Amino acid sequence: MINKLVENIKRTGAPIVVGLDPKLEFIPEHIKAAAYEKFGETLEGAAEAIWQFNKEIVDKTYDLIPAVKPQVAMYEQFGVPGLLVFKKTVDYCKEKGLVVIGDIKRGDIGSTSAAYAVGHLGKVKVGSREYAPFDEDFVTVNPYLGSDGVNPFIDVCKEEKKGLFILVKTSNPSSGEFQDQLIDGKPLYELVGEKVAKWGEDCMGDEYSYIGAVVGATYPEMGKALRKVMPKAFILVPGYGAQGGKGKDLVHFFNEDGLGAIVNSSRGIIAAYKQEAYAKFGPENFGDASRAAVEDMIADIRGALENR
Amino acid sequence: MINKLVENIKRTGAPIVVGLDPKLEFIPEHIKAAAYEKFGETLEGAAEAIWQFNKEIVDKTYDLIPAVKPQVAMYEQFGVPGLLVFKKTVDYCKEKGLVVIGDIKRGDIGSTSAAYAVGHLGKVKVGSREYAPFDEDFVTVNPYLGSDGVNPFIDVCKEEKKGLFILVKTSNPSSGEFQDQLIDGKPLYELVGEKVAKWGEDCMGDEYSYIGAVVGATYPEMGKALRKVMPKAFILVPGYGAQGGKGKDLVHFFNEDGLGAIVNSSRGIIAAYKQEAYAKFGPENFGDASRAAVEDMIADIRGALENR
Repeated sequence: MINKLVENIKRTGAPIVVGLDPKLEFIPEHIKAAAYEKFGETLEGAAEAIWQFNKEIVDKTYDLIPAVKPQVAMYEQFGVPGLLVFKKTVDYCKEKGLVVIGDIKRGDIGSTSAAYAVGHLGKVKVGSREYAPFDEDFVTVNPYLGSDGVNPFIDVCKEEKKGLFILVKTSNPSSGEFQDQLIDGKPLYELVGEKVAKWGEDCMGDEYSYIGAVVGATYPEMGKALRKVMPKAFILVPGYGAQGGKGKDLVHFFNEDGLGAIVNSSRGIIAAYKQEAYAKFGPENFGDASRAAVEDMIADIRGALENR
Repeated sequence: MINKLVENIKRTGAPIVVGLDPKLEFIPEHIKAAAYEKFGETLEGAAEAIWQFNKEIVDKTYDLIPAVKPQVAMYEQFGVPGLLVFKKTVDYCKEKGLVVIGDIKRGDIGSTSAAYAVGHLGKVKVGSREYAPFDEDFVTVNPYLGSDGVNPFIDVCKEEKKGLFILVKTSNPSSGEFQDQLIDGKPLYELVGEKVAKWGEDCMGDEYSYIGAVVGATYPEMGKALRKVMPKAFILVPGYGAQGGKGKDLVHFFNEDGLGAIVNSSRGIIAAYKQEAYAKFGPENFGDASRAAVEDMIADIRGALENR
């Protein structure tokens, strides 16, 4: 799957991922009104609004982008109806040829991590049958529990040719509270980065490992350092746009080959119609606003990479 | 909800929690056969088997115990049908008067943590209506992202009078890989423990804070140290029984009042009928085996507390 991700990036020339994090406040009123008309102001109604919103954004952007990253929390908050639409979104994006990164940030002790791995990346056995319940291509994983929390995910990735992005340095303001603490003069995130490089060694695709890392766009200096610590790891970079990251800050997350990183934008793309720059599209053409925002984001990052 | 947990513990005299982590391999063949007969060897069939298994264990133990801890991964691995039964289990246990600790180990950046918090502990708004999607009483939270990943959970707890158990030192063998790293001579888990104490300060129930911690039974010395760092935090202690912890190792997780800790056993209770000690019950009476195992666990821990 790492090879497909690299291929998709080369084909589109766009090292970006669209974060499908559909808060209800991002969804235009006419979409919500139609969904509530059909299902009432219920969890099912909310889920239907999310589905219609996602579908339009995917339809309007899929040819420009290599991947999407649905944030499961935004679905899980609507309970089971929300998770049904999470699954529907995963399937639809895969049909469109997109690589799907499930942003699930799971992580537990061995046998429990194995259950998450099977549920999201692998196949679960029921009697003599097998099922792939959520079936994303990549997932994000929290490393706080150490190797035996991560290894069950890696085992499933090896079997299924899928991949991980392991949280190393997150994009939020207080990420440093624990992640930046110095251990023998070295920050914890670097220690985790070293582990990611190690875990990834025997998980190589053609050019990159399928064990990647999450490093926030909001910490470009750390991205530069971590790029060297994990030369073969793909870095998923959240925090572009709404959280403050810009293309020029991100060049050091990439290798010299122009690969090795994929930059996520969620709100900046999916709620583009709410920004002044794209207001002309109006809520009814929110998908076109998202397309324009994708084009601008690609130009920003491509420009920065060309001029580095 | 921390007050209800304390009341339930005092009433039952049992500072224990039964982990409802129903792997299919734990479920007796006759339960699975009946479920597959009805729904086939499908995700729905697996979910039905889990439900019948859980129900019997709860029916046979609820009067002895204060709380249950369903591990969501064991349900999530069966996709949406599994999550429907997670919810059904939460609701059933609450009807029986049990405190329900959702072992979800979620944690993300601010607005995403808020979505998890709302989905599992709070209420989500859809238009003019509100819904409580999963509605557990407590959840477990991963602190790797720092305060702004944890605070949204705390906010919902304050509003809903619910609570958290934050991962401090987990029970698995490799938990030390990151958690034990020394920062200015102090291990990371202790730093996290200090934060838990701090977060908990303005979240007090009558005797204890509703911001608790997870500390593995497999690390009794660390439990002893952390007990002092977080005097008002309830400690959820996994790792008893199958993972190796024994009653006498656990006394220092408790305060002098005999409170302040709640010890989890999952496999040791729910798959008791598979152990030699309870084999006489046979698979058909697996619920009675679980009841006997609960009685033995209570006696072990109570004995250890009386003799300390």
